[in-house]
Amino acid sequence: MNLSPLVFPCRLKMEEPSSSDKTADADRVLKALAEYGYPDIDISLPLLRRLPEELRKNRFSVTLVIGRQGDGLKVLDIGREKIFGLAIDIGSTNIECSIFDLVSGTKLDETGMENPQVIFGNDVLTRVQRSMTGDFGLLTNALLDGLSELIAKICGGNNVSSEDIFAVTIAGNTIMSHFFLGLEVNNIPISPYIPAVSSAVFTSGRETGLAVNGNALVYVFPNAGSYVGGDIISGLISSGVYNEEEPVLFIDVGTNVEITLGCRDWIMVGAGAAGPALEGGVAGIGKKAEAGTISRVRIDSRTGEIQMDVISGEEPKGICGSGLIDLISEMYSADIIDRSGRFVSSGDNIIEKDGVKAYLLHRSGQEELYLTEAEIKNFLLSKAAMFSFLYVFVRAVGLTFRDIKKVFVAGALGCGINPESAINIGMLPDMPRERFIPVGNSSLKGAEMVLLNRDLLCDVENMTRKITYREMNEDAELMNILQGAMFIPHTEPEMLKG
Amino acid sequence: MNLSPLVFPCRLKMEEPSSSDKTADADRVLKALAEYGYPDIDISLPLLRRLPEELRKNRFSVTLVIGRQGDGLKVLDIGREKIFGLAIDIGSTNIECSIFDLVSGTKLDETGMENPQVIFGNDVLTRVQRSMTGDFGLLTNALLDGLSELIAKICGGNNVSSEDIFAVTIAGNTIMSHFFLGLEVNNIPISPYIPAVSSAVFTSGRETGLAVNGNALVYVFPNAGSYVGGDIISGLISSGVYNEEEPVLFIDVGTNVEITLGCRDWIMVGAGAAGPALEGGVAGIGKKAEAGTISRVRIDSRTGEIQMDVISGEEPKGICGSGLIDLISEMYSADIIDRSGRFVSSGDNIIEKDGVKAYLLHRSGQEELYLTEAEIKNFLLSKAAMFSFLYVFVRAVGLTFRDIKKVFVAGALGCGINPESAINIGMLPDMPRERFIPVGNSSLKGAEMVLLNRDLLCDVENMTRKITYREMNEDAELMNILQGAMFIPHTEPEMLKG
Repeated sequence: MNLSPLVFPCRLKMEEPSSSDKTADADRVLKALAEYGYPDIDISLPLLRRLPEELRKNRFSVTLVIGRQGDGLKVLDIGREKIFGLAIDIGSTNIECSIFDLVSGTKLDETGMENPQVIFGNDVLTRVQRSMTGDFGLLTNALLDGLSELIAKICGGNNVSSEDIFAVTIAGNTIMSHFFLGLEVNNIPISPYIPAVSSAVFTSGRETGLAVNGNALVYVFPNAGSYVGGDIISGLISSGVYNEEEPVLFIDVGTNVEITLGCRDWIMVGAGAAGPALEGGVAGIGKKAEAGTISRVRIDSRTGEIQMDVISGEEPKGICGSGLIDLISEMYSADIIDRSGRFVSSGDNIIEKDGVKAYLLHRSGQEELYLTEAEIKNFLLSKAAMFSFLYVFVRAVGLTFRDIKKVFVAGALGCGINPESAINIGMLPDMPRERFIPVGNSSLKGAEMVLLNRDLLCDVENMTRKITYREMNEDAELMNILQGAMFIPHTEPEMLKG
Repeated sequence: MNLSPLVFPCRLKMEEPSSSDKTADADRVLKALAEYGYPDIDISLPLLRRLPEELRKNRFSVTLVIGRQGDGLKVLDIGREKIFGLAIDIGSTNIECSIFDLVSGTKLDETGMENPQVIFGNDVLTRVQRSMTGDFGLLTNALLDGLSELIAKICGGNNVSSEDIFAVTIAGNTIMSHFFLGLEVNNIPISPYIPAVSSAVFTSGRETGLAVNGNALVYVFPNAGSYVGGDIISGLISSGVYNEEEPVLFIDVGTNVEITLGCRDWIMVGAGAAGPALEGGVAGIGKKAEAGTISRVRIDSRTGEIQMDVISGEEPKGICGSGLIDLISEMYSADIIDRSGRFVSSGDNIIEKDGVKAYLLHRSGQEELYLTEAEIKNFLLSKAAMFSFLYVFVRAVGLTFRDIKKVFVAGALGCGINPESAINIGMLPDMPRERFIPVGNSSLKGAEMVLLNRDLLCDVENMTRKITYREMNEDAELMNILQGAMFIPHTEPEMLKG
């Protein structure tokens, strides 16, 4: 990849002033920059003040840190050799952050934390309501403090001074981006749902209050309205949807199911509440993908024996979204549950917990990992919502699943969904398996890509303009399709083929 | 004049958001601005944060304060109706400041003060030396404190809040501009005489520390090297030299004599030390033009009777540069002094002060205004320097005085020089009197013009590029011409005609 990061070093070696060349210091630098291919760069007064001494330290050889600003460029620092950048995905539940050496383009590390706003409410709307009743400052501060902590952690762990961080790219949904920027969220949840800003925001470490260099360029992805946040835009950038010749699907499953259908000519995004089931949140044993999480399940339909993959091979402590999809699919295939999700057998693993039936997945001393019938029902509601959204969405533009050549699967399921299982239970359409492409945290990936390649800023802008939004929960057909989709795989299995 | 000030209000009346137009607040404003003819305007994060509330205060009617920034524009404030601007000329000795209502373009007031750096040394070089030995902070602070005082005075006197000042234009010589901006001056007095910056500086109230709105656009005129400061550039802008088809002269007399010769195709600037005589500083009775200053003198050659014009008609307390030129010319015409400046008569007005001869101009009680022979000699040295510079300069480009169709006279003499007197003593060349055009404080005037007309920024830039500098004191011919010019009018009067 050709490295052209958002912020980059420019090493200048200039002629020293002489009686035949009395060009002033700043003008000498601007001239050298223009010869280098960067005309009209802005140098702020505080940097101008340091310039004469910095130039004379090393006989007019100097390294400038240069950052993109709007359509132009500006000098962010003088005489600094190390330049690092952060890509940050601010999810409603989790924040992920990665750090890059922008001189070499190397990724040094990635880390994450729970969004500290979670203590104000799990769902975003609760937080917006709190901020509307006077706690806006508390919520933005909590987020900023959390980010500072995260930055301190990733910097400390990689021997990077936070003063050497000159670029930050931020992807988050519209409300998270607003909280991060300290922008009023009051008008977002009330019709006609107006964000303070949709365009990309170019700002600075100083203005955002992030614990990085004050002059750092902080880039916040644009949104396409209250429901299509910068996290989706960023994900679409990372998957390259906007470069596809033929329509592809992009599915991001978090608290909402967000579906994008499009190609280089048009992009349609829809979102709908699917419940937290697919994140694993529906079940007591649900857990995000980390060490000790079950990511794969197999059940021998003859013996009922359970085989599991556990991340890092540790003692299992929970199951992630893709593991849960495996589990439901395998329970169905092994005739442990019927089409409606009810237990049909009473084998060794069917236990009773607090008066309700449950399936025991794993026992280790006092610890039991199990799934109740109510949890399975809940899961099926979510899978039904997801499939129905996909079906309605693809049909809305006159296509069928057969027309879709790629399905990018991001978010909680993207870390390693098993299409076979998802198709088996009727959550994903029955398409050739190789068309499903897992893309993990596509939002963080998009933020990383822009951090390393400023040329993508144009793509982001052009793509965002093409996006139209479709409210899926309002679709008239949806309820009918949803009813059938509550069953495994569906009351009309032909619909899975589109 | 078409008003297009550096900073201007833009009143927007937008459609309110609705379910059929969900454009975000900032994007709505940017769209309205683009329709207004201002695309790609920058809105900083602190202003974005205030935007939603400001828009909803008055149903999406709002006034933005817009300022030029580099080649583009940016929003400086939201919801403010009053916009004022300051033009400031920072002279080594005096600071002049005028205030404008930028909405109407009206000049409200003009005031001035002594440059507070004078306590560190009358001449600029002394101040630079002090700053090189550790007092840079003291000198810049003195200047800034003085400016704050001046701004408070002019704001207070005109009922203007300093927070409503959104534009400041600053004209000063290269060293004064550097002190004002807090830019190192150490390299300016040492060969090869390199300023920190020559280009125009666009900065802010915040970055300069001026007592105006933090977002105010502060524009500092460019220089054309260490010797051709922003004050000269500004003066040339005000006189329109750069628009002339045929070469004209521009003479600015302060501590130095600065001469510009040029037209729209080329501009040559030269400067040389002429002593402070022409500012009135040579004589004990020298005084700047203000109430109580003698500005005109007539001596009846028959009776020796003295007639004087005194500014504001008050009791005379001193004499300004143009008055002094009148006085010397009249003393010569009335045969009170000879060609070499020595007293030839012993009339009523020839007195003796501390053992030297002097001419008594005025007596009021104990107060005597008089001029000694030594002071006259000193004056003649200055007038000789001035004439010689002009002669050498015009000849250097192959012209004679006859070729020059306009002579703009600025600075200390510009307030009302009497060409007849100046020509009579051989200070100015013997040209048709109507060719002499007094332009007063041309530097302040240029700063005012840019404040009111941002289109001139291009002219400033283009003109500055055309300027070449010529060191006059180094001219081989100069000493010969100077010798003759020490006499009234000259030992070879033909030279006065070019």
